[in-house]
Amino acid sequence: MPKKLVEGAVTSCELTCICDIREDRIERARDAFGDGIHYFGSYDEMIASGQCDAVLIATPHYDHPTMGIQALNAGLHTLIEKPAGVYTKAVEELNAVANKTNKVFTIMYNQRTNPVYQKVREMIQSGELGELIRVNWVITTWFRSQRYYDSGGWRATWEGEGGGVLLNQCPHQIDLIQWLCGLPKRVRAFAKYGQYHTIEVEDDVTAYFEYENGATGTFITSTGEAPGTNRLEISADNGKLVVEDNKITFYRNRVGLLEYTRTTEESFKAPENWKCDIPVTGEETAHVGIMQDFVDNILKSEAQSQVQEDEREEIDQLSPGVEGVRGLSLSNAIHMSTWIDGWVDLPIDGNQYYDLLQEKIKASDYVKETKEVVLDVKGSH
Amino acid sequence: MPKKLVEGAVTSCELTCICDIREDRIERARDAFGDGIHYFGSYDEMIASGQCDAVLIATPHYDHPTMGIQALNAGLHTLIEKPAGVYTKAVEELNAVANKTNKVFTIMYNQRTNPVYQKVREMIQSGELGELIRVNWVITTWFRSQRYYDSGGWRATWEGEGGGVLLNQCPHQIDLIQWLCGLPKRVRAFAKYGQYHTIEVEDDVTAYFEYENGATGTFITSTGEAPGTNRLEISADNGKLVVEDNKITFYRNRVGLLEYTRTTEESFKAPENWKCDIPVTGEETAHVGIMQDFVDNILKSEAQSQVQEDEREEIDQLSPGVEGVRGLSLSNAIHMSTWIDGWVDLPIDGNQYYDLLQEKIKASDYVKETKEVVLDVKGSH
Repeated sequence: MPKKLVEGAVTSCELTCICDIREDRIERARDAFGDGIHYFGSYDEMIASGQCDAVLIATPHYDHPTMGIQALNAGLHTLIEKPAGVYTKAVEELNAVANKTNKVFTIMYNQRTNPVYQKVREMIQSGELGELIRVNWVITTWFRSQRYYDSGGWRATWEGEGGGVLLNQCPHQIDLIQWLCGLPKRVRAFAKYGQYHTIEVEDDVTAYFEYENGATGTFITSTGEAPGTNRLEISADNGKLVVEDNKITFYRNRVGLLEYTRTTEESFKAPENWKCDIPVTGEETAHVGIMQDFVDNILKSEAQSQVQEDEREEIDQLSPGVEGVRGLSLSNAIHMSTWIDGWVDLPIDGNQYYDLLQEKIKASDYVKETKEVVLDVKGSH
Repeated sequence: MPKKLVEGAVTSCELTCICDIREDRIERARDAFGDGIHYFGSYDEMIASGQCDAVLIATPHYDHPTMGIQALNAGLHTLIEKPAGVYTKAVEELNAVANKTNKVFTIMYNQRTNPVYQKVREMIQSGELGELIRVNWVITTWFRSQRYYDSGGWRATWEGEGGGVLLNQCPHQIDLIQWLCGLPKRVRAFAKYGQYHTIEVEDDVTAYFEYENGATGTFITSTGEAPGTNRLEISADNGKLVVEDNKITFYRNRVGLLEYTRTTEESFKAPENWKCDIPVTGEETAHVGIMQDFVDNILKSEAQSQVQEDEREEIDQLSPGVEGVRGLSLSNAIHMSTWIDGWVDLPIDGNQYYDLLQEKIKASDYVKETKEVVLDVKGSH
């Protein structure tokens, strides 16, 4: 992202500061970006420096809420990487601070910029699909090797990362499934810990969801499979929608299914359906897109602060920071259901989750053999 | 089937008797097939008549084991419709009788004649797939209307049918998934009763399986969705196999995944895989195919009985009757997991299942409004 900012990929945005606790990384940044930028080894110092209006927090997950709170309290607009944190209790504190400030608070759910999912959301929200019956998402394209897990001391430990595939790779799809279909009412899930890798956290997950209207869902993810599958299927009153290979196919029922089921004189014959290829326009702008949205909203928000309070317009963010807690609560519910071997209702009990997580951290006897590897993270998000 | 037999669709097989407790049906049969056939209103009488060597039992499910036992004990070769029964306890009694006789005992798992699933089985058994990682089957193409369920008094009641989609529509796929991948070690399942229809039994099911080697699976079925999906995906060490639209695609890993995951120097990159369209030859011979297999095995078995016991060859049936208990135990496990809201280990406790089922029957206050409808069962199997 620094490179993109320096190259001007984000309009009205200037990279003024870089902070890293590792000196070698600061040196690499200085080599790359020169002396026009302020470099900090201390986050506190950067925040206090007055050299930036906004921060992008891309640190291990545990630090997102605390560093976010610090930035917002210092009057800085704040963009955090996903996930919003490791447990909802901390993220709710972050949200409480964000809600009290008039600063822009955003989360890097960059896959919300994918026009495919934007289109699916628009189809659901406009009523094209009608009442939801079932949603299945198989997202097993997150293959990682043992070497990957060995590459960083914090990775894939309860203490360092607070989870595995649910916290690192698939928070995007966890967010998208709730962005599209809402949060389920309750969850029963089966996470496997160290199933395909020598790690203590989950690398394989099957979750079952029940929604308020009786609809059901499954969410399957893994870092231990290849080749993986990325297939989202949503069954609804007006037909079935399938997203695969970044294409949307909608099998549209000519008449609504639920009413038809009750009233038809037919026994076996389903409503006629038409296979529709749904057009998708636009590009996935990804990290740059979220950053641009963040910056645009900062400008809007600052313009709004000049007008009378009762005449201010609501700012419509693509990926509001306060929504980070939603996906995280679903991901926490999946762990909790596995740990208690039972149902978990949403919203989850954040204190209970926190306590269970502390137990995992305390019980950990996992000694990591870290290998010094510089990851090529191309294609890792 | 009677029509096909009269037309000579099954070699070396002659239709000699028809039995139905309903006189109007006997009359319809007589009109269709004439007086060259013996008609019975009583099963006991037909069995005792000496007019048949073999029977096909196509009655409501509860009667399959009792009528099967009666036929086998009378020295008749026996073909039962699926499912083998409603609860395993009765089916185990049937199997015990079958194992003591030298009569051929077969179950109408007609989808085992589909060359697509035969090919998948051959690929698994020959080791092409290697160790199983995950199996997902979404089989929601069993749409039925309310009218269908209203069409027969026994249908979709605990007392009459003993279940819904698991007992009537998808025993085929329940059998195929165990025929292909074996039985799971334990099951956690979520059946919905009367979710999309006014019925007391299940019309929507999501089941989660865990296998002995740690592999996981999901099985999703419904009569309340349209258009449905029929997609089987099997992930294994050597790649991923997908069956959809009656075609097999195998994404073959160039090197085994499990070893690669442990040893590669790559972090994100999965093994190279080749998309292979797997050739399938032959036709799905369906009910006629199973009947032919049954008849051929009767002839073989009778020929074998002429040779010395220690020189007899094992008869290799496509769909042995004794295997009916396997799919049924999986289907019972799915109900039981829902009822006890917990895990069910396989083999299931047949007595416990029987007791729980009796409770359902006793607790039923469902009064059925049966409409007089003659079902056109074309395409219903």
